[in-house]
Amino acid sequence: MRLVVPAGGIGGARFLRGLRADVPDAEVTVIGNTGDDISLFGLRVCPDLDTVMYTLGGGIAEDRGWGRADETFTVREELAAYEVAPLWFTLGDRDFATHIVRSQMLAAGYPLSAVTEALCDRWRPGVRLLPMSDDRVETHVVIEDEQGRRAVHFQEWWVRLHAEVPAEQIIAVGAEEASPAPGVLEAIEAADAVLLPPSNPVVSVGTILQVPGLREAIAGKTVVGVSPIIGDAPVRGMADACLTAIGVETSARAVAEHYGPELLDGWLVDDADAAVATDGVPGIEVRARPLYMRDTESAAAIAKATLDLALELRS
Amino acid sequence: MRLVVPAGGIGGARFLRGLRADVPDAEVTVIGNTGDDISLFGLRVCPDLDTVMYTLGGGIAEDRGWGRADETFTVREELAAYEVAPLWFTLGDRDFATHIVRSQMLAAGYPLSAVTEALCDRWRPGVRLLPMSDDRVETHVVIEDEQGRRAVHFQEWWVRLHAEVPAEQIIAVGAEEASPAPGVLEAIEAADAVLLPPSNPVVSVGTILQVPGLREAIAGKTVVGVSPIIGDAPVRGMADACLTAIGVETSARAVAEHYGPELLDGWLVDDADAAVATDGVPGIEVRARPLYMRDTESAAAIAKATLDLALELRS
Repeated sequence: MRLVVPAGGIGGARFLRGLRADVPDAEVTVIGNTGDDISLFGLRVCPDLDTVMYTLGGGIAEDRGWGRADETFTVREELAAYEVAPLWFTLGDRDFATHIVRSQMLAAGYPLSAVTEALCDRWRPGVRLLPMSDDRVETHVVIEDEQGRRAVHFQEWWVRLHAEVPAEQIIAVGAEEASPAPGVLEAIEAADAVLLPPSNPVVSVGTILQVPGLREAIAGKTVVGVSPIIGDAPVRGMADACLTAIGVETSARAVAEHYGPELLDGWLVDDADAAVATDGVPGIEVRARPLYMRDTESAAAIAKATLDLALELRS
Repeated sequence: MRLVVPAGGIGGARFLRGLRADVPDAEVTVIGNTGDDISLFGLRVCPDLDTVMYTLGGGIAEDRGWGRADETFTVREELAAYEVAPLWFTLGDRDFATHIVRSQMLAAGYPLSAVTEALCDRWRPGVRLLPMSDDRVETHVVIEDEQGRRAVHFQEWWVRLHAEVPAEQIIAVGAEEASPAPGVLEAIEAADAVLLPPSNPVVSVGTILQVPGLREAIAGKTVVGVSPIIGDAPVRGMADACLTAIGVETSARAVAEHYGPELLDGWLVDDADAAVATDGVPGIEVRARPLYMRDTESAAAIAKATLDLALELRS
């Protein structure tokens, strides 16, 4: 079985770990969001790709959900002593090595997809991890605060400002001119189904869908998604701040309608949102299930439900 | 009093620490050798500049003589896990931060002299530390081994091969086209004396002297040097392998004759080489003194003797 999973960070990574546990023999291609990527201290950091790689490769810091386990922060301490910015984005020593290797390869001319493959030679995540594009797409957020109205890098809004300043607009700079990375369209084409994990529908899955050709290719397949919203709140992260920015209500129903029946065939909502399944969403098959990913076992159950619905809708 | 000290790594740094202790009010400009600089993992490493900066700034690992005190090696361990080369050049986590800051500034367009000044803002070495040139000069060594006759980077010969393969030739690639860094010629011009520490006469002081204009400018001043050779052996390092490569005997006399009376006015040899002082070297005033730098106190005594001789010869 061939599956494609467009994924952001923690939510996507944990869903994928569940999927791997449920169907270990499936060929899973992950299309990773690179809109959150940022250059820090001259090094290229790809938070979402790394979270997927570390989580599936057994190197993630489980408690934080990002960065490496058994991490130390000596390099960061030294950068602070040099008074170089930005220190609001924390990188550990082990993590730095990943960025050093990536930056060196990028500087040598390798595209991000080749670099990611090389990094995965070490981590062996059990999936094929592809960046959505080798071209630079960068999510910027338009905000207005005491410094005036301006666009900041997504990470500055998300990590430094904790998404507390309202986002007026969220723009995937460069997306229009980007091409899917090698293998992305082919993987979608060959897929039995596309599963949308409970990643951020705006800045993770939403950014991936903005790469020209990806939305159309994915829409052509059987697509089942997992709601990242339970009740009226995101399971984790601050997806509500992103949804508000694009005028979408923070609810399982609104996200399904935002993706729309052109894209989605099936949608899993949490039991807390069973009314969405009962009332229905036009053109989308909605099922209610327990959606909290507490551990690999519960993530595997969610992945199984997602896949089962996809296979059911496909036949 | 204004002094200029062309310096390599450990020997130069320890001499400078002694000089600072002896004449804390002197304005000391250090012309640092950059021929040993190397790009590793995409980062720019300047071993000699850093050894001077760390030693005078109180951050050096005293036991090793290079790199940072209280060092850890987590990044290196991770790079090894990614199987990226070269691992024969050891960089610690604290040290990595220096190279990250330097590389970021160089990539942003700052010349090495400005970068070095910025790094020294933290370390406050008590001297003005200038690279010999902002242009890239790289010491290469021609060797012949089982892989054939070839030129390797100085560090590959020195660190990886432990200088055990004979050097057929030592070339400062780029030196002919290099210009002295801003401030270097002015500092020499304004100096009351130039002191040559017991740095490697071939690949440290010798490389500095190959930057066009530097030899002539230094030769125009009162110059007193400290022999890096005691008896028939280098005090530390493998200077003998370098001297052999350029056809100079490993002795205090031969190094003085190699520098020559056009450059040197005075020369300090160790008491073990008192015969050189007794017999004399034509055109050079030679004095015998204890030259082992065991601690800052003995280094200060050596620096004082060097400076005293310079002031004596100048008057």
